This record gives sequence, structure tokens and C-alpha cells, in this order.
Amino acid sequence: MDGVEWLGVVAGVLTTIAFVPQVLRTHRTRSASDLSTPMLLLFTTGVGLWLAYGLLIGSNGIILANAATLVLSAYILAMKLRFG
Amino acid sequence: MDGVEWLGVVAGVLTTIAFVPQVLRTHRTRSASDLSTPMLLLFTTGVGLWLAYGLLIGSNGIILANAATLVLSAYILAMKLRFG
Repeated sequence: MDGVEWLGVVAGVLTTIAFVPQVLRTHRTRSASDLSTPMLLLFTTGVGLWLAYGLLIGSNGIILANAATLVLSAYILAMKLRFG
Repeated sequence: MDGVEWLGVVAGVLTTIAFVPQVLRTHRTRSASDLSTPMLLLFTTGVGLWLAYGLLIGSNGIILANAATLVLSAYILAMKLRFG
């Protein structure tokens, strides 16, 4: 892989792992009122579509990044719906 | 554009506009304690790298989506740092 491709990998890793600290915070504080439900719904849906897109074009990078982000954002959404 | 490309466009639009309701909520409530600062830092950095990636490969879609997301996530991050 060349430098530009590595840039894409690092960007993908950052925008995926970014949601881990949010999962941990919401899980620990059991408080999600400052999180926007429409944001979580739109984002989770969009990431799901990115996953479908990755599957359709057979891009392992897009599949991996968006599968992980889907799990994390869906979990945050579930906690938001539960904790309010 | 074929169906798969449209799927990518819709996915990109959703994961971009998703942050508008979060900006509006945080702006209205002036409360961001449930938002994770590390999440916002990692995500904003990652989106910035996606923007650089899009510029380097000359992809208008990646440039547009990530430029908009960068503005929105940076604004949420600024409000988090301000409101605490």
C-alpha cells in the first residue's frame, strides 16, 4: 500500500475507534441525555448503508470499518433509548 | 451513476447530516457532559484525515462529505470544550 492508502486506513481506524470512548462513558455514567437520538438514528442508518455499499463493491476496508462502527453506534443508540 | 453509487451517496449524506441534530441539541441545551471528549477528538481528527485523503485522490464525494462533517464535529467539540 502507498502513503495515500495508509492515510485512508488511519482515517478509517480513527473514525471507527472514536466511538469506543463514547460507549465506555455512556456505559459508566448510564447518562445519555446530551446525545441526540436523531443523530444516532441517522448515523447508525448511514453506517449500515456504508456496510452494504462495502459488501456490494467487495471492499474489505469499508466492510471492516463500518461493521465495527455499526456495532458501536447501535450500542450507543440502545443505551440512549434505555437511559433516556 | 448506478444503484451502488447512489447507495454510497445516500450513506455519505446520512453520516454527514447526522451531526446537524447533535449540533442543534448541544447549542440549545448548552449541555455536553454526556458527550465523550476523546470520541470527539478522535472522530474530528479521523474526518480531517478522510478530507485529506479525498483531496489527494481527487474524490469530490469524499471531499464534500468530510468537509461538512469536519465543520459539524469540530463545532460540537468546541461546544463540549466550552460547556464542559
